[in-house]
Amino acid sequence: MVSAAAVIIGNEILSGKFTDENSPWLARRLRSIGVDLARIHVIPDDVDVIADTVRTMAGRFTHVFTSGGVGPTHDDVTFEGVARAFDVPIERNVEIEAALKKHMGANCTPAALRMADIPQGTCLVGEGFPVLVCRNVVILPGVPIYFRRKFDLFAQTLDGAPMESDRLTTTMRESTIAAILSEAAKRWPAVDIGSYPRVETNPPSVIVTLDSRDAHQLSQAREWLSPRLVPSS
Amino acid sequence: MVSAAAVIIGNEILSGKFTDENSPWLARRLRSIGVDLARIHVIPDDVDVIADTVRTMAGRFTHVFTSGGVGPTHDDVTFEGVARAFDVPIERNVEIEAALKKHMGANCTPAALRMADIPQGTCLVGEGFPVLVCRNVVILPGVPIYFRRKFDLFAQTLDGAPMESDRLTTTMRESTIAAILSEAAKRWPAVDIGSYPRVETNPPSVIVTLDSRDAHQLSQAREWLSPRLVPSS
Repeated sequence: MVSAAAVIIGNEILSGKFTDENSPWLARRLRSIGVDLARIHVIPDDVDVIADTVRTMAGRFTHVFTSGGVGPTHDDVTFEGVARAFDVPIERNVEIEAALKKHMGANCTPAALRMADIPQGTCLVGEGFPVLVCRNVVILPGVPIYFRRKFDLFAQTLDGAPMESDRLTTTMRESTIAAILSEAAKRWPAVDIGSYPRVETNPPSVIVTLDSRDAHQLSQAREWLSPRLVPSS
Repeated sequence: MVSAAAVIIGNEILSGKFTDENSPWLARRLRSIGVDLARIHVIPDDVDVIADTVRTMAGRFTHVFTSGGVGPTHDDVTFEGVARAFDVPIERNVEIEAALKKHMGANCTPAALRMADIPQGTCLVGEGFPVLVCRNVVILPGVPIYFRRKFDLFAQTLDGAPMESDRLTTTMRESTIAAILSEAAKRWPAVDIGSYPRVETNPPSVIVTLDSRDAHQLSQAREWLSPRLVPSS
């Protein structure tokens, strides 16, 4: 099973000044291509915390996607964090340096060139402004449109078995259907069954979700559950 | 400094089926009452992962707020996770049991009563359906309106120094202002300075945020930065 972790780097998310748009998008996108997102960690712009988090996640999951901290300002320390995670130095990359100079012209300040100082051994995927991949860590920018564009560029290199999904809605109480869902979870172990109360509907309802990479078990579970989630009148 | 971590428990967030509304709300709310949110970890409905995460966060930060996994269904395992984090047993709480029976009447199934099986040593804050606090872990429900209501009930017991904030917007490039921001960060160490490019505006702009618990340093930094972020025409 191909697994992934998202490491969202940014004081602005933790302080509530900006809402993280990248992890919800990444969660849906990974799911659609059959990769299991196992963790989302939102952490501050702190080299040691980035290093610890990246090292742990990289050892545990197939891919780690970082978001943010790759710009030219003093609080952009993701490259240092990833380098420290793997105990490698930072090196000026001539390919990125040339691309920055060409693109920015007179605006290419020494600060801007920090964006070309990347962990040793980082691979460049794609042309122009490539995706940076250091071992199994995919280093993505925090700005949502760039995050998405670069992720999609990287995703072309991935291959996963897609997840099939279904959902049922019932007006029975969650506490009443709990035993039914438990029974279904035991009968079809390959189906991940979730239940989510919606108190804002009238009457209150419960959304029951079914997810599996085994389409046969999924349809069996659905057939068994469907008549059992109809309230007796 | 009072610090906090958010532990968001739910496969439905990781799979992208639902977007986590609780951590962005919590981030803003904690900020407004002067508590530093240091981490947000989104993790699966897995007893061992919950136990590990809660144990680590509880040892590092003043408060841990968990979201989700406290309902009556098979995938609700937060109480077990918190109990295992502190190596204490699960016990039936008679106060919660009575409240559930009174509130649910005939709908109070054995599954519903699982909501009264909580970690030994958990304190009940408030009346009726109280907030559950196990050591420094505040166990909150995942349904957003209940999460907010219970958080606010708990927050009455907190006391923090509020953060003052300001922001400036410039159409100068981030790479051009990077050195200016670095200089300001050095001059006013108590001020947290962030810069966030907005590529969707025309012309593209950069939002510069200033945050501090020291109002004097904050206003000095603002006065110094403001004229330096005006593009020369």
